[in-house]
Amino acid sequence: MTSSEDFVVTDRGGIVENRHRIHAAVVDTKGRLLYALGNPERMTLARSAAKPAQALAILETEGFAGYGFDDADIALMCASHSSEERHIARTRAMLSKIKAEEADLRCGGHPSLSETVNRAWIRQDFAPTAVCSNCSGKHVGMLAGARAIGAGVEDYHLPNHPMQERVKRTVAELCDLDVRDVEWGIDGCNLPTPAFPLDRLARIYAKLASAADRDKAREDLPARDAALARIFRAMARYPEMVAGEGRYCTVLMRAFDGALIGKLGADASYAIGVRASDETRRLGADGTLGISVKIEDGNLEILYAVVTELLDRLGIGSTEIRSRLAPFHRPQRVNTMGVTTGGVSFPFKLRGSKADGDDPRLAAPTR
Amino acid sequence: MTSSEDFVVTDRGGIVENRHRIHAAVVDTKGRLLYALGNPERMTLARSAAKPAQALAILETEGFAGYGFDDADIALMCASHSSEERHIARTRAMLSKIKAEEADLRCGGHPSLSETVNRAWIRQDFAPTAVCSNCSGKHVGMLAGARAIGAGVEDYHLPNHPMQERVKRTVAELCDLDVRDVEWGIDGCNLPTPAFPLDRLARIYAKLASAADRDKAREDLPARDAALARIFRAMARYPEMVAGEGRYCTVLMRAFDGALIGKLGADASYAIGVRASDETRRLGADGTLGISVKIEDGNLEILYAVVTELLDRLGIGSTEIRSRLAPFHRPQRVNTMGVTTGGVSFPFKLRGSKADGDDPRLAAPTR
Repeated sequence: MTSSEDFVVTDRGGIVENRHRIHAAVVDTKGRLLYALGNPERMTLARSAAKPAQALAILETEGFAGYGFDDADIALMCASHSSEERHIARTRAMLSKIKAEEADLRCGGHPSLSETVNRAWIRQDFAPTAVCSNCSGKHVGMLAGARAIGAGVEDYHLPNHPMQERVKRTVAELCDLDVRDVEWGIDGCNLPTPAFPLDRLARIYAKLASAADRDKAREDLPARDAALARIFRAMARYPEMVAGEGRYCTVLMRAFDGALIGKLGADASYAIGVRASDETRRLGADGTLGISVKIEDGNLEILYAVVTELLDRLGIGSTEIRSRLAPFHRPQRVNTMGVTTGGVSFPFKLRGSKADGDDPRLAAPTR
Repeated sequence: MTSSEDFVVTDRGGIVENRHRIHAAVVDTKGRLLYALGNPERMTLARSAAKPAQALAILETEGFAGYGFDDADIALMCASHSSEERHIARTRAMLSKIKAEEADLRCGGHPSLSETVNRAWIRQDFAPTAVCSNCSGKHVGMLAGARAIGAGVEDYHLPNHPMQERVKRTVAELCDLDVRDVEWGIDGCNLPTPAFPLDRLARIYAKLASAADRDKAREDLPARDAALARIFRAMARYPEMVAGEGRYCTVLMRAFDGALIGKLGADASYAIGVRASDETRRLGADGTLGISVKIEDGNLEILYAVVTELLDRLGIGSTEIRSRLAPFHRPQRVNTMGVTTGGVSFPFKLRGSKADGDDPRLAAPTR
């Protein structure tokens, strides 16, 4: 179930301009692969799409509850935020909750992921510092976790720190992998970042959605599932904390209003967890859906277009809901004089374990 | 001589992050394909890498000489400039030479290709207009050409305008193609932009370098070759006009000091024309070399890395000269805390028509 022929194509006046190779996996609660594009087992650096899994390790530290973090704080732990005022203010408030200071953070400042914020910073000659990092929430969380388990806080970011060892075990468990089968690099924010087969990223998000379903059904959940449900709820309820104004994750989660969570990873990975519904069952899912995508060349604009196309093909959410993602789905190719110069097309076919060939919506649109 | 396995790889801690497919062609004065990567005949939108060919059509209009354009003006006609003060001032001066005004230009403003210029614009709340377009020189040239041939100037940018019809013929001739075998889209600046097999782009630049060689040898050149030689000389002598401070084309041409010209095209195409030397002859070239590159996904950072790697592999210029391109060759993968997180590697092998397998420099370095 691997293909080297799954591409997104951009054109100029009908002439192919660029092609971007796609990998995707759609799994259900049990981790069964339902649909695929490219290589669904591509060893993939999940980057910030792994944040909910890293956050789980933080929530599971003894004494974590004592800090009084609320759901918006947890959403920020899972965020790649735009460094808007509300994100920076919340980072500072979270630091206060654990009686720490900005100097304790082991991340650095960088230009904002939001062009609007960046322009304001340039006008004010503002030099971003650690609290402005798009990963600031995760860093405060790791610092809190390190303190909660009584480990040193100066080096909470190092791969062999006890907190990071916990993260490694937690991520592997969520992936249903041996800890030795997950590889680790160093992220842009200086924390370890995991790599594992792409379908395992989908599996993590299917589990998050499944825990949310069972929580909603008022089941008496084991501690891990309760924590996973809390993470899902936090991201779904505070989508503006997870990214920022106008950003894809925020727009997506606002549009779906609790039915799913979605999270970007740098260099174009993405993961979505969809709560169980008639829609997921119609696709052959036993319960929830997990969707993971990686663009081989790291192009973010193409990533958002593909994720939106996949939601369309799979029929997740109403047409009205998905229409709110239209600007991401078919990004305008308009030149400096307002003339449309070309477009983006999706001439691929989702390969299914069951429905392959049966469902016309899964095939490429006629061109 | 086609391969689907030619990639540049970026990694994070040794784990593959992204892969970028490469196409390249290396030809000689006679248009013979000497070396290739990917599909050297990939139908490619050359974008601004075609500007010297478009400029030739302008230089060949009757009465062009009467406008008094100098070589720096011609360099700007071939430019994708950074909208620095000197570029905008020269655009205005060129408009004066043809007694035209900014309002006569059919391009629009856009953010500068230079981050430094952009930041200054944001601080000053400056809204860029037509003279700031990175293609402003080409537009003034087209306007001059339209006037020189006595055609309307209001619609000089439209595909069926007599000036653009001339451009179509000229581009096809330089490609050694029938005019019907070149396809055209609309560029970001609103002028038509050609697509043709990638090796034909290399051929255009080999011709530019060949004309420069013969001009230098004080041969009595036909008008077309004299114009091609003038374009080569203009670009080589005024590299700061072709791009801008710190940009690849400018750094490259400064480093090689007249031995070659190089030009970027948007969405990651590149072309180089190398004057004949022992270096080009050692590679099996009859005279000059033309090199063309296209990154399948349009990534510019990867494009510059690949072009520099190719110059290394082919042994064009001294090690000292090529060392000035080092920041482009292996772009630093350093995170917000100054930690190196990974690198860029070039695990491909140039396929040669002759020397394939013979020359160790053409193979991928051991990793």
